[in-house]
Amino acid sequence: MPILSRERIVRIGEVMLTAGGAAPGHAAIVANHLADANLAGHDSHGFIRIPQYLEGIERGKLDPKAEPEVVRERGGVIQIDGHSTFGQVVATRAAEKAIEKAREHGVSMATMGNLDHTGRIGTYPEMAAKAGMAAIMFTGFAGGTFGNNVAPFGGRSRRLGTNPIAMAFPHSDDAPVLLDFASSMAAEGKLRVYRNKGQELPDAWVLDKDGAPSRNPNDYYDGGAILPIGGTQGGHKGYALSVMIALFGGMLGHVASPSGDADAWTGSTIVVMDVGGMAPIGGIRSEVQAMMSYVKDTPLMEGAASVLFPGEIEANSRRERLANGVPIDDTTWSQVEGLFHKYGVRDALDNGS
Amino acid sequence: MPILSRERIVRIGEVMLTAGGAAPGHAAIVANHLADANLAGHDSHGFIRIPQYLEGIERGKLDPKAEPEVVRERGGVIQIDGHSTFGQVVATRAAEKAIEKAREHGVSMATMGNLDHTGRIGTYPEMAAKAGMAAIMFTGFAGGTFGNNVAPFGGRSRRLGTNPIAMAFPHSDDAPVLLDFASSMAAEGKLRVYRNKGQELPDAWVLDKDGAPSRNPNDYYDGGAILPIGGTQGGHKGYALSVMIALFGGMLGHVASPSGDADAWTGSTIVVMDVGGMAPIGGIRSEVQAMMSYVKDTPLMEGAASVLFPGEIEANSRRERLANGVPIDDTTWSQVEGLFHKYGVRDALDNGS
Repeated sequence: MPILSRERIVRIGEVMLTAGGAAPGHAAIVANHLADANLAGHDSHGFIRIPQYLEGIERGKLDPKAEPEVVRERGGVIQIDGHSTFGQVVATRAAEKAIEKAREHGVSMATMGNLDHTGRIGTYPEMAAKAGMAAIMFTGFAGGTFGNNVAPFGGRSRRLGTNPIAMAFPHSDDAPVLLDFASSMAAEGKLRVYRNKGQELPDAWVLDKDGAPSRNPNDYYDGGAILPIGGTQGGHKGYALSVMIALFGGMLGHVASPSGDADAWTGSTIVVMDVGGMAPIGGIRSEVQAMMSYVKDTPLMEGAASVLFPGEIEANSRRERLANGVPIDDTTWSQVEGLFHKYGVRDALDNGS
Repeated sequence: MPILSRERIVRIGEVMLTAGGAAPGHAAIVANHLADANLAGHDSHGFIRIPQYLEGIERGKLDPKAEPEVVRERGGVIQIDGHSTFGQVVATRAAEKAIEKAREHGVSMATMGNLDHTGRIGTYPEMAAKAGMAAIMFTGFAGGTFGNNVAPFGGRSRRLGTNPIAMAFPHSDDAPVLLDFASSMAAEGKLRVYRNKGQELPDAWVLDKDGAPSRNPNDYYDGGAILPIGGTQGGHKGYALSVMIALFGGMLGHVASPSGDADAWTGSTIVVMDVGGMAPIGGIRSEVQAMMSYVKDTPLMEGAASVLFPGEIEANSRRERLANGVPIDDTTWSQVEGLFHKYGVRDALDNGS
């Protein structure tokens, strides 16, 4: 299993995406995003995605050179049409602009439609936290013919995406308090892991095609659907959250992007709050640290190993992998390496960093 | 079991709260809030609360005449110190001001600290939806010596409140799409219902005092804690949400209210988005209706009776109870009626509406 440094992941990503046709600035944003997702421990949104993006470009669904366009701007609000380019490029620009706007108006939001995969969405609220601000990001999906995998609570058909939400709040410099999760019982990639290992799911995460709750991951792929957070008992909460993410992210992104798909409500929205304008930011950071110490100061639940603050796993992974490198599984490595020849980048990569 | 009209609930609430010392304008806001919570079917936040508020006034913890104060205003942001008055008064004023600000800046937020019980928090995003806007409200709690009842994931001590979140998005005139839930497996009041009936909980909603998952509601009252949404398996998601609500609601409310409790991070924040400034509001409403029809158009999950859009239960209850009245359980009725004499309001109520 190869172990790559952050720099090596960025280098491979940049060279390959540029070879695939990406504007150099775009390739740099995406490659850095992938490397940072690996550092945070979210390998499903890291290096492993390179082949998918190259394929999206080949199929003409991802425009690797398009520039996101601000279609409307009013007060603290910016609406962006991504013109089918990399989601990371659109969302990075959107977060930068929203941070700027929040400095001016105290609170701001950027909506974005017609963009490709945004990657690890925690990335964008983290940018705000680094700037001493708090943020919420919604990435929502409903409708269309592709991309639905979650059933509305009470129903059995796929009607919603796994619709993730991320929130960050300033804390220490290298570790914001961070929430970053799908509003479904699990992301599709997690089901795939259980299926590949031939294992049962830990709980009834899916419905089979007849609407019966199931722990068999194959039932999802055989025409079933993933349940929203809360599952068969409390799934009304996860379902409500998923619908709201489809509205605040998907619907607002959709109406911002006349160039986008008319059949699906899909897109992202980031809301940024300049909390440093509400009280001195140093004081806020130390109050947040005090709150996290208070929350963690408890004896353990039966069977638990520790109590972490939200985002602590990512911060620990980042520290460890910056020091020791990122292990890339053999399947992913041979898949990406197999593309070196096709894209004619072997020499560039051998001679480069 | 008496059945009261909306008007009768408002009348009893106004007369009693005024007799208890409330400023007449405050009493009207709170009484209307309670009646509307009953209409929405959330009886735990309706008429039943009158004795609690009167007791809060008697104990000097709730100031029934204080006026909320805007302590700082900048761009789209308003920070409000509630000066210990009714949460409904503070949050209603905050929502009104935030709606005004959103008209000007496109997006706005109001933070509020040092306020009593906010009641049914879905109320405030609903106000925004009625004005053609979308909104999110956080009511968060952590710290202090009273009010914690939820364990952080992995721990067993009470460290967080049940920390609810509410979101609304414009849909039809009488029924916004609405999310309104606690970030814990259940609100404390729900455990009380199971305990009073001598029933087991539907799932392991609580930990006992030794940190073992339990379906016995008494284990909570015997030094245990409520689990966050997701329970023993997926509780890391509910825990992260609870912490974020404690930060976006409690921490931001806390820093807005120099007059408040220094020992607890507690308060509320509402974020309002003028979506009608992003696209014609009529078009948005019909797209939202199309999305809800699409989401609901599915065969059922095993054992389910229907698929509703989030907020549909509340809208149906409102329609039914406006027509047929609100049943008040005998215990609550005799408790409130028992206070008629103490507060000297029997004549006023007999002669009034």
